[in-house]
Amino acid sequence: MTPDNNNDTTLFNWEEAKATLTKFMPLMVEDQIHTAQSDIVNPLPEDKRQALMDIPFQEGPRSADEVMHELNDFVYQHRTKQSHPRFFSFIPLALSPISVVGEAINSFYSPYGGSHTLSEGMAVAEKKLMNWMGEQIGYPVKELGGLFVSGGSMANLTASIVARDEKLKEDELVKGTVYVSNQTHSSVAKGIRIMGIPRANIRKVKTNDAFQMIAEDLEKQIEQDKADGFIPFLIVGSCGTTNTGSIDPLHQLADISEAHDMWLHIDGAYGASAILSSHRHLLDGVERSDSISWDGHKWLFQTYGCAVVICKDRQAMSRTFSENPEYLTDIQSDDSNINFWDMGIELTAPARGMRLWYTLQRVGLKEMRNAIDKGFENAQHFEDLFRKQPYFEIVSPAQLSIVNVRFNDGKHTEQELNQINKKLSEMSTQRNNAIYYTTMLHNKTVLRFCCMHPLLTLQDVQQVVDQINEDLASLGLIES
Amino acid sequence: MTPDNNNDTTLFNWEEAKATLTKFMPLMVEDQIHTAQSDIVNPLPEDKRQALMDIPFQEGPRSADEVMHELNDFVYQHRTKQSHPRFFSFIPLALSPISVVGEAINSFYSPYGGSHTLSEGMAVAEKKLMNWMGEQIGYPVKELGGLFVSGGSMANLTASIVARDEKLKEDELVKGTVYVSNQTHSSVAKGIRIMGIPRANIRKVKTNDAFQMIAEDLEKQIEQDKADGFIPFLIVGSCGTTNTGSIDPLHQLADISEAHDMWLHIDGAYGASAILSSHRHLLDGVERSDSISWDGHKWLFQTYGCAVVICKDRQAMSRTFSENPEYLTDIQSDDSNINFWDMGIELTAPARGMRLWYTLQRVGLKEMRNAIDKGFENAQHFEDLFRKQPYFEIVSPAQLSIVNVRFNDGKHTEQELNQINKKLSEMSTQRNNAIYYTTMLHNKTVLRFCCMHPLLTLQDVQQVVDQINEDLASLGLIES
Repeated sequence: MTPDNNNDTTLFNWEEAKATLTKFMPLMVEDQIHTAQSDIVNPLPEDKRQALMDIPFQEGPRSADEVMHELNDFVYQHRTKQSHPRFFSFIPLALSPISVVGEAINSFYSPYGGSHTLSEGMAVAEKKLMNWMGEQIGYPVKELGGLFVSGGSMANLTASIVARDEKLKEDELVKGTVYVSNQTHSSVAKGIRIMGIPRANIRKVKTNDAFQMIAEDLEKQIEQDKADGFIPFLIVGSCGTTNTGSIDPLHQLADISEAHDMWLHIDGAYGASAILSSHRHLLDGVERSDSISWDGHKWLFQTYGCAVVICKDRQAMSRTFSENPEYLTDIQSDDSNINFWDMGIELTAPARGMRLWYTLQRVGLKEMRNAIDKGFENAQHFEDLFRKQPYFEIVSPAQLSIVNVRFNDGKHTEQELNQINKKLSEMSTQRNNAIYYTTMLHNKTVLRFCCMHPLLTLQDVQQVVDQINEDLASLGLIES
Repeated sequence: MTPDNNNDTTLFNWEEAKATLTKFMPLMVEDQIHTAQSDIVNPLPEDKRQALMDIPFQEGPRSADEVMHELNDFVYQHRTKQSHPRFFSFIPLALSPISVVGEAINSFYSPYGGSHTLSEGMAVAEKKLMNWMGEQIGYPVKELGGLFVSGGSMANLTASIVARDEKLKEDELVKGTVYVSNQTHSSVAKGIRIMGIPRANIRKVKTNDAFQMIAEDLEKQIEQDKADGFIPFLIVGSCGTTNTGSIDPLHQLADISEAHDMWLHIDGAYGASAILSSHRHLLDGVERSDSISWDGHKWLFQTYGCAVVICKDRQAMSRTFSENPEYLTDIQSDDSNINFWDMGIELTAPARGMRLWYTLQRVGLKEMRNAIDKGFENAQHFEDLFRKQPYFEIVSPAQLSIVNVRFNDGKHTEQELNQINKKLSEMSTQRNNAIYYTTMLHNKTVLRFCCMHPLLTLQDVQQVVDQINEDLASLGLIES
């Protein structure tokens, strides 16, 4: 029958795959090893952009060498290295080589990620991993269910749809109301609109000085909405906001959710990893939520596209997403044969969890805990150093691995201070060996540092603060 | 500052990544090279399942060798090899090593796929690829826009949400109606419900003998719905149904869509690739649609998780998904800085298109065309061989790379014939060197063959038919 291999075709030559990867591995490893010494932001120059746009898709083949060098030179070099230890913006990518290996292996086999039956080995391993993650959160393993998805947006959307279908009838969407805080990630509200809830029905509850949702305001708003004929059905709490790393008052949110028969989803895309750290007590109460998002490509050091959504009750996921919910009657107490396509939006999906399975097995939990703890430590070190400068205010102290500070010498207007802090960020971007963008907190422009990368050292932190002082001196704002 | 590398940690040792992949590459290549000689279905035995579930996530590290051997033995070996040339079920995975290489390279760098600014090289390359794909469909390049997503479900959902937001007000969802055919993939209806349209508002239009949507019925239904106070807003046509490969009457669907000011989306997840074949005329009219789905991991030989949704008008995508639509006024005629997160559901996403960019560059279009043409040829060969057997009826002739046949010797009841055909499928699965499941067409159980793999030979096809005849003889249904 079909021959072993087909070396006559370019398309199906596995030996070439091995040869190409083996040949270019040193180039790729070199790039990654020297990340910490390289520029962080690396825009694509206009001539290269034009050259890249001009490469046609042509009839004949081209050599792997030629194409790979174009990829390296035009495409991959011109990325912002979010995996640089001194990239402090957004939630960075602390890209571990272990994860790269796990994902490369997975790509080689390319198992189907949507089904239990078609990829049993993958399904069992991912289920084991999901159970373990849910157990860390505090959900009963016998009842929980979950799904690997591409990121926080998909995880939050998936959970929100389950909440909608559990709590609202199809013709009630126009009355359904959802509660987030003014610090909740914007992707949550985007997801709410995607699933058909009117934009006006998304309530942004105020936060306190620690940027946590104010439970009293939440409850008042829910009662008002009920009186006005709305149907409050979903509270989205944050466990590690992107701006400040703050954690909403989880027990209070759970109390309110229970009292009003609502669904409590926790966006832990970034912060849920703290459950593995020595600071896990910060997340007390998270076990009372109905569902949680948790990203591998954030604080678990994975390549992009590895996140999870876990629901306390897997039946709720199946009720929402299964096209054949009848079969569920047979598996009330057994999830061994649930297909992943019955637990979420996608039918075809890659096996996204295997790289994390490999990472946890290879590295072990102790080093993972230490790596996460390192983020806490570095954020605290930043805070301590800035506190020593009389002309800095700590706008949001170290929470998880994030700290927000502001140059404020008491001699400038608010507007001037905003401009100075923006300038400090720009000067650092210009220098291109540490990147920290500003964010807005209480209408103030502040410098935000997310210190998540385990290879960031205390010496790095010291040098970043020293450099900021040099910048301030060069601007004539402090004595040099 | 930060050291070059950190060989003390298990988590961040790039040299180990290189060593591990280099060491295990032969094992992975061996597995793939021998795919055509191996069992196709490979269930996980109970003892291995238990062993896999029992592997704990423990405190200490384990060696890469140990973990990799578990992965290979317990996880990856126990997958249904949908990439086997004689796996004829669903839409198979014709996994090309070129795609594996492209994806492994991409994982190594792990560029951020959601933004233009953060990954300029990737964004420009993917835009060029998207423009080229849209151009093949027949959309004007200056106006089109698109997004790489994980698969057909996400592509169809993304386009459907754009249609909803372009055609309905937020409080009109309960009146919005959508038109699919009884052959449209089930994931389309699932997506419609996900975005908040009531299940009862999904109209399944009948199909003709060639399994194409009947345009007259579609129009009648739309007019009836309008008279009943519904708001028809979306027609989803199929370009290559999963059951039979049939293509809906594209020009008629476009006429009706235009006449009623509706959105026409084409699900080309499987069939759109025919536009690259020498049979491209089959898709005449597809250029009149508003949007299309097209999967790389189907008939473009990519690893799982590589699909695209393209809209004729990129502004419509941005209006729906951008959180800051104001900025669009500046870029009416220029898409150079649109962030992908403003074109779809996800914020964080891997760079899913780069493996396809690499494949097209490395392999060239001519071999891609030939590889797609091969699917047409093999399906036709199956049809021809079955036509020679008087006891087979051709229930759906070769369309794209799919053909559906049925053992029917005229001597059995419909129910008996259903059982015999089911039995033939089971006997082949038992034998495990060619897998074809049954499907239902016109309430008949039929044997379905999707012959998409370019390494499938005419000799393979002949042997599969011979084997079926042997099975029939062994059942005493024909003379041996």
